[in-house]
Order: sequence, then C-alpha cells, then structure tokens
Amino acid sequence: MMSTASAWCPYGLNAAPEHGALRDLVLPKMEFSRFHYPSKGEVLRPSLYSMSVSTINSSKGWVGSITALPEVGDFFWEKAPTPILDMVDVPIHLKNLSPKELKQLADEIRSELSFMMSKSRKPFKASLAVVELTVAIHHVFYAPMDKILWDDGEQSYAHKILTGRRSLMHTLRQKNGLSGFTSRSESEYDPFGAGHGCNSVSAGLGMAVARDIKGKRDHIVTVITNQTIMAGQIYEAMINAGYLDSNMVVILNDSHHSLHPKLEEGPKTEINALSSTLSKLQSSKSFRKLREAAKGVTKRIGKGMHELAAKVDEYARGMMGPLGSTLFEELGLYYIGPVDGHNMEDLISVLQEVASLDSTGPVLVHVITEEDQGLKDDPISEIAVKHQEGTCRVDPLPSYPKLSGSSLSRTYSDCFAEALVLEAKRDNNVVAIHAGMEMDLSLQLFKARFPDKFFDVGMAEQHAITFSAGLSCGGLKPFCIIPSTFLQRAFDQVVHDVDRQKIPVRFVITSAGLVGSDGPLHCGAFDITFMSCLPNMVVMAPSDQNELAHMVATAAQIDDRPVCFRYPRGATTGLNSSVCNGVALEIGKGRVLCQGKDVALLGYGAMVQNCLKAHSLLTSLGIVVTVADARFCKPLDIKLVRQLSEDHAFLITVEEGSVGGFGSHVAQFIALDGQLDGRVKWRPIILPDNYIEHGTPKEQLALAGLTGHHIAATALSLLGRTRDALLLMR
Amino acid sequence: MMSTASAWCPYGLNAAPEHGALRDLVLPKMEFSRFHYPSKGEVLRPSLYSMSVSTINSSKGWVGSITALPEVGDFFWEKAPTPILDMVDVPIHLKNLSPKELKQLADEIRSELSFMMSKSRKPFKASLAVVELTVAIHHVFYAPMDKILWDDGEQSYAHKILTGRRSLMHTLRQKNGLSGFTSRSESEYDPFGAGHGCNSVSAGLGMAVARDIKGKRDHIVTVITNQTIMAGQIYEAMINAGYLDSNMVVILNDSHHSLHPKLEEGPKTEINALSSTLSKLQSSKSFRKLREAAKGVTKRIGKGMHELAAKVDEYARGMMGPLGSTLFEELGLYYIGPVDGHNMEDLISVLQEVASLDSTGPVLVHVITEEDQGLKDDPISEIAVKHQEGTCRVDPLPSYPKLSGSSLSRTYSDCFAEALVLEAKRDNNVVAIHAGMEMDLSLQLFKARFPDKFFDVGMAEQHAITFSAGLSCGGLKPFCIIPSTFLQRAFDQVVHDVDRQKIPVRFVITSAGLVGSDGPLHCGAFDITFMSCLPNMVVMAPSDQNELAHMVATAAQIDDRPVCFRYPRGATTGLNSSVCNGVALEIGKGRVLCQGKDVALLGYGAMVQNCLKAHSLLTSLGIVVTVADARFCKPLDIKLVRQLSEDHAFLITVEEGSVGGFGSHVAQFIALDGQLDGRVKWRPIILPDNYIEHGTPKEQLALAGLTGHHIAATALSLLGRTRDALLLMR
Repeated sequence: MMSTASAWCPYGLNAAPEHGALRDLVLPKMEFSRFHYPSKGEVLRPSLYSMSVSTINSSKGWVGSITALPEVGDFFWEKAPTPILDMVDVPIHLKNLSPKELKQLADEIRSELSFMMSKSRKPFKASLAVVELTVAIHHVFYAPMDKILWDDGEQSYAHKILTGRRSLMHTLRQKNGLSGFTSRSESEYDPFGAGHGCNSVSAGLGMAVARDIKGKRDHIVTVITNQTIMAGQIYEAMINAGYLDSNMVVILNDSHHSLHPKLEEGPKTEINALSSTLSKLQSSKSFRKLREAAKGVTKRIGKGMHELAAKVDEYARGMMGPLGSTLFEELGLYYIGPVDGHNMEDLISVLQEVASLDSTGPVLVHVITEEDQGLKDDPISEIAVKHQEGTCRVDPLPSYPKLSGSSLSRTYSDCFAEALVLEAKRDNNVVAIHAGMEMDLSLQLFKARFPDKFFDVGMAEQHAITFSAGLSCGGLKPFCIIPSTFLQRAFDQVVHDVDRQKIPVRFVITSAGLVGSDGPLHCGAFDITFMSCLPNMVVMAPSDQNELAHMVATAAQIDDRPVCFRYPRGATTGLNSSVCNGVALEIGKGRVLCQGKDVALLGYGAMVQNCLKAHSLLTSLGIVVTVADARFCKPLDIKLVRQLSEDHAFLITVEEGSVGGFGSHVAQFIALDGQLDGRVKWRPIILPDNYIEHGTPKEQLALAGLTGHHIAATALSLLGRTRDALLLMR
Repeated sequence: MMSTASAWCPYGLNAAPEHGALRDLVLPKMEFSRFHYPSKGEVLRPSLYSMSVSTINSSKGWVGSITALPEVGDFFWEKAPTPILDMVDVPIHLKNLSPKELKQLADEIRSELSFMMSKSRKPFKASLAVVELTVAIHHVFYAPMDKILWDDGEQSYAHKILTGRRSLMHTLRQKNGLSGFTSRSESEYDPFGAGHGCNSVSAGLGMAVARDIKGKRDHIVTVITNQTIMAGQIYEAMINAGYLDSNMVVILNDSHHSLHPKLEEGPKTEINALSSTLSKLQSSKSFRKLREAAKGVTKRIGKGMHELAAKVDEYARGMMGPLGSTLFEELGLYYIGPVDGHNMEDLISVLQEVASLDSTGPVLVHVITEEDQGLKDDPISEIAVKHQEGTCRVDPLPSYPKLSGSSLSRTYSDCFAEALVLEAKRDNNVVAIHAGMEMDLSLQLFKARFPDKFFDVGMAEQHAITFSAGLSCGGLKPFCIIPSTFLQRAFDQVVHDVDRQKIPVRFVITSAGLVGSDGPLHCGAFDITFMSCLPNMVVMAPSDQNELAHMVATAAQIDDRPVCFRYPRGATTGLNSSVCNGVALEIGKGRVLCQGKDVALLGYGAMVQNCLKAHSLLTSLGIVVTVADARFCKPLDIKLVRQLSEDHAFLITVEEGSVGGFGSHVAQFIALDGQLDGRVKWRPIILPDNYIEHGTPKEQLALAGLTGHHIAATALSLLGRTRDALLLMR
C-alpha cells in the first residue's frame, strides 16, 4: 500500500521504503492524523481548508504502512491509515479540500479498495481506474441534489465509499449487505440502479428532461465506459440527447480495457500537455459561449452556413482530438477531451467549467484512465489483481466452491466448453458467438482451439443474436452463448430474427436461475418463460454434466429450427471428471430416474438434482417417490407427463424459473388432456414472485424454497404428513 | 402516371400532355412495345442491349397513358404500359439493360407501385423512394447468389416486383398472399426477413463472415434507412462490422423522412456535381487501393502515424462530405457519398466500383432519396399519397373498418389518446413517450395538446423505456406507449431499469394480439407472458373503451410500482361515442358481467367481448354461463377466481396471448389453492402455438380459435353437448 500511495505523493516519496522499516511508525502516525482531523461524523470545519496536507505530511513516514509482509496465498495485510478519508462521510465534506488533498483522498480510497479487493477476491479493477474521477465529480457537483449515474455498477465502489457506505463495504455482495451495483433503495446518492450496463444516458436524460419541465436546475452526470459504449442503447440515448438538447454531462471513462479488441489494438490516445490545454479550452466558458452564439447566428443565416460553421468547429476539434471525438459530435453531444483521468487538477478544472455553464445541451467529457493505475509498483496489489485476472483461476463467483483442476469442482461452464470443443472437432461448421458483460473463462478453451470460429461481440446482445442468424443462413452452426439475464436484452431478435424465421440458432443460456452474489441484477429467472412461449423453439435444460454434453450434441444436430438450453452458474454435481461423448437425444423425450408411487417429482434442468435429494430424504422416511427428468420444456414429453399423471396421485413440477415456464406448459397440457379433471393433483414449485437479493447460492436457494428439503416437505404435506414436513424444515 | 414517367424522361418530355389526349394512343403503343420486347418468361436476347429505349421511343406518345380521368374519392385509374418491366421476371434480366433503359424501368415500377398504392390504401411511399436504388442494385449485383437485405420491409416492394413476385403483388398483405415484408419462405431473393427494422447489418455481417469461413465470394448488400439508423442494434452491428472487417456493402437510404426531427430540421444534404464526382472518386479502385496500402504501411510504421494518416483521410473526406459521414468512419465503415439516389448512372457507377473490389472491409454508401420523387407533378399520385399521409384519415390498417368521425368506428387508440389528454389535464406531471416504427395517428391529439410533454424517440425502444424510468425518477408520470411486438425489443430495460427498481412507469402496450395484415411480424402475442412474470408489475387489460379510460386513470394513480395495460388494434366494440371520465379501479379486482352456472368464462382484455358473444350463442341454446372480466392478470383477483372455481364445474380462461400468460397465472393460483384437486375443471383458450400469417382480423381470429363460436363450442363440449358444438362450428 505504501507504494500505491507514494506513487501519487507529490513530496518526493517515490522510492518505496522497505515494508519492515515502516512497522514501528504505524501507531504514532495514526494518532497524529487523528489529532489534526475531525473525527467521523463531525462536520468539516472551514479552517481545515487552510491546513493543507503538505503541512501535516512534513514527516515522511506517515503515508501508509504494512504491519505484516504478505504471504502469497494469504493476501492479507493491514489497512494503511486513511486520515482524509476518515473525515469524509458524505460528499459535501469534499467541498473544501484542495486539489492536493483530493489527490491524497483518491490515493487513500485506492488503498482501501485494494485492501478490500485482496479480501473479497472480487474483480473490481474497474473501480480503481475511476477513483480520481469519482473524487473530482463529488468535489465539483452537489450530490444527491445533483444526480451522479454510473453506467457500470462495478465502477461505483469509490462512489459508495464517499457516500456514507464505507463502513458497510465489507458486506459487499453478501446477504443483507451492500449491493455490488448502484441501487436506489440503498442510498439517495444512487439515483438509478446499474447492473446490466448502458442505461445511464437514457435514465439521466429522462431526469434532465424532468428537471427542465419542473423548472429545477440540478446537474445530471452520467459516467459511461468503453465497455458499455458498445451497447446499442447508448447510441439511441445519445441521439435522443443530442436532439432534446437538455443539459447533461456524459463522462466517457476510457480505460482502454474494452471487450472490443479493435479499440485495444489501436493506438492509445495520447495524453499530453497539448490535450490538457485543449480540453481546458474546449470546456472554457468563452469558447463555448462563442460556439453557442455562432450556432444561433448561423441558424438564422440559413442552412448552408449553419452546416459549414458546425463542421468547421467539429472537424477542427476532431483533428486535434482523438479518434472517436467526432462520433459524439455527430450524435449531437459537445465533445471535450481527452482529459487525463488521474490528473486531479485537470479533472476538476474541466468539470468546474462544465458545471458552471447553463443551456449548452449535452456535453461529453472524454476521460482517459488506466486500470492498473497506482498498482504498478505495489507487489501485493499486483498479486491481488493477477489473482482476479484469473492467473490464479479463481471462480468469478467466490460463493461457488471450486478448486482448479479438481474433478469435484468443475463448473457447468467448463463442461459446456469441453463439449463444444468436441462438437466443433466433429463438425467443421460449428461456430461460437458470445455476448454479455464478462466472458466466462471456460470459453477461452474454445477460443484458443478455434480462434477463427469464436466471436465475442461484447455488450451487444441484439447484434449477437441476429449475427448468429446470419451465420446460420450462411450455412454455419452457430452456438450463441449469452447469460440468461442478458438474453432479455435481445428478446425481440430471438423472436423476430430467429424463431419466426425458424432459423437454426443454438442458444446457450448461461447463469440460468439464481446467481449468488450478483443478486437480482444478473438473476436468470425468466428465460424458461420467455423462450418456451415461442412457437418454433426447442427448449431444454440438462440435469447434470453428461446431459449437458448430450444437449450440445442434440443442439448441433437440430438444423431445421432454433434450440436453446440453459445451465446454472457454479459447479456440477457429477463426480466424473471427464466430459462424456455427447450423443444427440431424442427430441421431446424425458426420462424416469427413480420409479416410486403416489408422488411424482418432475424436475427441469438442474432442479432434477434437488428432486433426487428430496427422494433420498423421503426414502429415509419410508416414502418412495418417482423422480423424472423432463429434459425438454418444449416440445414437452407428453407421454411421460401423461404416464406420471395416470400413475400418481400427485405431480410436483420443479424448476428454477418464474411463473409461466415449465410448470405452466405441463399444466396447459394436462388440463387439455383431462388429467387435471380429478385424476392427478398438480403442484408447481417455481421461483417466488420477487427479486431475491444477493447471498450465497445456498442462502438464495433456501429463500426461494427450492432445496431438496422444500421439495420433500411439499410431498409430505400433500401426503398428509404435515408433522414430518415441519420437522424436515426445522 | 404520365408525368411520373416524364419527370425522368431524358427526351424533353417535360410538359405533361393532357390525360385525355393520350387515351387513343394506348392500344397501338402497347402493341408496339410488345412487338419489340420478348414476352414474359423468355430469356433476354443479347441483341436487346443494342436496341436502346431511345430508338423505341422516337414517337413521343408511348410513355404512358391514363384511360380515364381520376375522380377524387375514387382513386382508380388504369395502369400505364410497362414495356420494359414486362420483360423482367428475375433480376438477371436487368443485366443487359442500358442506364437509360434502367431509368425507364424504374419509372415503370414507380408507376406500378403508385397504382397499387392507390388501390390498397397502404402507405408505401418509402418504397417509391428506393425504386432507382433497387434497380441499380439488381443490375450490378447477382441475386440470389449475392444477398440483398432490406432493413425496412416496406421498402422492398420494388425488389419484390423485380424478383418474380410482380403478378402476386395484388395479394400483398392479404390471406395467403405476399407478405408486406421480406420473407425467407416467400422467395430465395429474400435472404432474411425484415419487419421490425434495423436487423439487416447484423444478419448481413453474419452471412459475410460465414461466406469468408466457407471460402465463397458472393456479395452482401444491406439497405438501411434514416429511420432504422436510430435503433441501437445498427450501431452494435456497425461496430462489429468495423472490427471484423468482412466485405459487405451497407447502403444508407437517406430520405430525410426521419422520425428524428433533428435530422428533418437540419439542412438537407446538397447533391450536386461536386458530390457526384466526390463519391465516384471515393469509390474508385485506385483511391481505395491507395488507402488500403496506406493503412498497411502506417500500421507497420507505428501507432501515432497510423492514427494520423487515418484521421487525415477521414477528416479530409469528412469536410467534403455531409454531416454524418465521419460517424460511419469512426465506427469502422468506409464512407462513400453522398450519391443521388435518383441518378441511375451515378448509382450504377458507384455500386459497380464497390462490387469490383475485394478485401476492403465494410463500406457504407450514402444515398440521398426523395420520397416524393416522381410524384410531384402527378395529381393522382399526389392524392394517393395525401390519402396515405392521413389527410383523408384512413386507418393504417385497411382491414379494420373505420369511418372518421363516426362513433361506431373509434379505435382503442383514439379512446386511449382522449383518455390520456383528460388525465394530463388533471395532472400536470403526465408525460407521454412513444417508440416504434410508426406512430398511431391518434397520438397526434396528445402531441398537439401537450407538445412539450410528448416525446417520440423513434425506433429506439430500449432508450424509450429507460428514458421513461428517468422521467419517473424526476417526478413525472410517464406513459410509455409501445406496440406489443416492439416492447420485446426492450424487455431487459423493462426488467432491469423499471421493474426491479419498482419505478412507476406506465406501459401502454398497443397492437396487442393479432394485427391483421401485418401478420406474424407485428403480432403482439407474448406481452402478457413476459410482462406478468415480473414481480413488481401490475398487469391489466381493458375489455372495452370505458375500461380503457378507467385503466388510464388507474395507471396515473399507481405511483409506487410499474404498471402496464394492453389494447388491440382496430375499432372498439362500444357504441358510445364519448370517452367516459376515467375512474381509478381497485387494483387486482375483476368483475362478473353475467351470472350463470356450470360454466364460467373468465376473459382477459378484449377477449371479454368474445366471451359475451359466446354467452349470447349459448343463451340461445338454453345454457346460461357466467362471464367475468378479469381486468387484472397481476395481481390476480384471487377472490373472484376462487369464487368462480367453487361455483362452477368448468372454468374457461380466454386471452389473446401465448401460453404462460393469464391462463397460466390462474392455473398457478388454483393449483396451489387446491381448486384443481377435483373441484373445478380448467380449460385455457389461448393463441395457438404457431405464427398466424397475415389476413383480416376476422380470418386470423378464426384461425386462432378465439371467436365467440369457438368459446361457445368449447363450453358445449365440456357439457357433453358435442353435437351442438359441432353444429356451432359448421
């Protein structure tokens, strides 16, 4: 942490002292800073401003300390002292800090985030890149009156720290803890929820228009990123913002860490003295007033002149600015940039200019940041980052236990990637398309093996689907891999471009059902419902890893209509380490796993495992129930369903999805088949009708009432053994 | 039609002869042209090329004729002769035509389209604008080997005429007739289906990549428009196209007839000699080879140089080109234009250059067209166009009978607009947001009354939803008006930006259910299913116009969560001409309309009317059934459903929607409530599990099995009166 801080320290502390040498300095320095600064909760005194950090820091050792050298594999160290941060409870406390103090504050936040990062093993490098930007925004603007919107929830951690949630940051993404994204219900400083990316300009524009209608004067600031800028909605929003011409500030956080490889390949935008001067000029009041005036005059003069004037201005600045600058101008936003996202003074001066002007329409401030900023010389942080980057191959979801290389901990995603590689080896036409916010590491396997047949389009789900349809029309066999929750973003493309035209696209729906610490934002609750209502779609779900391999083979074979299958996050239940050779299943054919009587448990997808758990529990109570694996929601195995209805008094359908899905399809059939006319009693077990907040998968499953115990208890109460049911749920 | 042709005739025929004077010329001229041209179906002889149109047309009178002067209010006139078009069955027949003949062909197609337009009363002005472009594309490229994709189905009519479907054009949008959009199942010349707009670049890119993988060399040409270019998917696709760098030609048909008012306000792009020369230069082989070479060199030299070279090229051309040109360059497409979309020689020369080059990546050709092209001096066509533009106020759906001003024919949409105006008068915070391809005329009422509170964002549904959420966060009461089928395009925004955050946005789902001549493409089959699975959404549907007014009031009042209601296209059933004063309904409360016994018909939305029809039919057979109006799908009126279940042997739910919707919610409840355990027999009537092709609403409803007769027959067979049921369905 030492060097993290010192890299930014303006007082010549560039050589990081040895960690050991700092140990003894910790306590006295902590006291020192406590003495000078007001304690938490106190209102910032005006006198503080004159007492700059430089006077406090006349002694060199204060900046930070590490009480124990880190051990690789341990990733634990003590927090560095954070004297300025300790005084900041709410953003108003930033108002009187000098640029140097603000820079210091940013360093402290980065240190705090690095510390958290090491503990939580969650990737939030993205959050580190915007620390200075966050501090500058909160220094210049007046949240919560001014609305600060984040496009990518994972970049909002510094914002959370500065807006009264610092003490709760250790609960991030845990049950009853802070959300990993912005959340309206969590804080008044979060005016809108982010999680799927790319919504902030639309929402911010709505707020800006509402403000204008209501005659208010607050500022709207949205921060977009070069990941979210690949999503179509941003363009829809910018075009509309350019047209409506409401005042708002769109900040593009350009960290060159894009899913769009072209941007990464390309030359990095140079940040130098010229660009700093340029962006200050662009944002200056006189320059923009001139431009506004010119706009007005040329509008009156007439068309040709107006166009010419606008273009001269646009292109003149475009020639000086980086690639991309005129794109925003063409969309109707006034471009300012590039600004060095780690230069506090530049950031503040540009934002202050932007904030001070009225009636200028939407402005785009292009900020260049480095995700590795401040980590370069810090061995510990570096390990933490590598750790996150997958060098240590930790599952992105910490709550799912997984050990690399162990057969016990293979994820569904691993199994899918292996099965797809097998299929692609068999069939030259197999290609894979991926869309979404972050790619599952397992897919690297396919990408490495077939680099020319793997297409990661980034956050562009709509395009991904129709692109897949085009590939299919061209004679290939596309597997389109999208998390359930992001498939929602392209539902119309699924309907219109694929299903209605009966084009064979294979949808691989990942992160189906509950998703642990990502909570309701990435929960895949609705896909069974919205996919199985489509007339031509084959809808299936594997109950284990072998079934998954079979379904990959089935999907590859179906070539006359679209098909989809879903699998959950996390580890498979199977003990077998090898992926079996997938064999195409008979379409619309389920299977009975255990034959029993009275009660039939008909599971769909991963929930078949929970039905088997219920089976074991019930067997121990002397009740032998039937367990069947539906495999297909559509076409439904009506023979199997009819048989189960005829042979049992009770039919329980179990799925990890919302109402309207598998259970509804079963009900529809057995109602029309007359099975519900007193022959069988049907009970659907589905996800409850609410959003389940983040927690461990186990906690979430219990909340949802989808555990083996819940299923067994349902069977018991149907059989009149209420007492046993209650005992089971104790 | 005379003048339509003459406006383009290069032989000095600018003064349109009087119609009457031409009458006598018709027959001999028809014979004359038949004599010189091969008859339909014959292969085009090479000798034809040398026999240019100018020699044929040495006599002035031949160009066209009108046998009867049109009477206003009649809109009928005879077709003009179409000698060149008569020889064209498939695009290959265009290959040997000279530019002049091609121009003549375009005029003939325009004349034919104008004729159709006058008959069908359907708006396809958009089709008229691209006639020359269509002819040029088919002259230069080799369809169906080369793939021609249309982004907007309504622009494909000239394409349909040229690709073997001319004789069927009179069946357009009728049952068993041609689709109003492109369709893979209709013709091999339609490589992809268009209908929702904005999918062609994605699909085309998929085909281009598949072609490259398969080692083929065909061309991919997609035509986008300045309407569809407002949709986010286009940007996602262009970014990806720029990255993948596959060869494809994207043609922007810029007719300045945009839903984006800014573009319309702005100065029109000048088409002049300079732009013609410029676009020819841009598209020339040497120029582009030079650029490719420069790319390669600078890539090797290094980053800065590469960037600079690319920018000099880009901006230099940008300065010469129109506003918008660099936007495409920034996205990675090589920009060529602007090209006069009615200048056949320019079009052909640019397209030929583009077609002749290999390995240049995606190219954007900017073509400027006029929708009124060729209509200016033609009084008849002008009337037809005005007619379409709503001056004559004809319903966009001809199949729904409607008379302007008559109380008998008011549409649901009219009633909604009036109710919303009433609501906005009451409540200052009411605002309306519209998204979709074309705006319902009724909404003009609201727009005229509250111009500052009406936002038409065009084809940008994703933005519309999140923008509405932002407006709501800003304290307004947004009513977001989107056709059911287009709401699919923004499903994730509904989930993530509205429902999960419980933001009060009021969704007004128009064109719900079957949509007549728009067929399956705009059918709103799935909204009940995908909206009612959302935890926080209030989902309702009015059964008549008064209920619609009440639901507008209800939606305005609900301010703690999102709400939606759906209504169908076409006329209401009510006889009352005035919109009643809407009164907020109790949430989750249905109503019984007729009390009967044995069978309960529980209708949802407009289907309540069909339940009432069934009630009448059954009453005449001596059976009195109960009819209830559910009003709410969510929250369901469980008291009502329980009562109906307890009091009747049979419960029939009726909705104009897919599986997983209202019926499934009823089944879910009565299963868990134990009502299905032998107490009541439930039968769901829903839309069938297939796409229903275009036809009249009546034909479609019969195909779907949702008429009053169907419902009555279902009740009869449940009661064991199978013979009566059969008689009813005769």
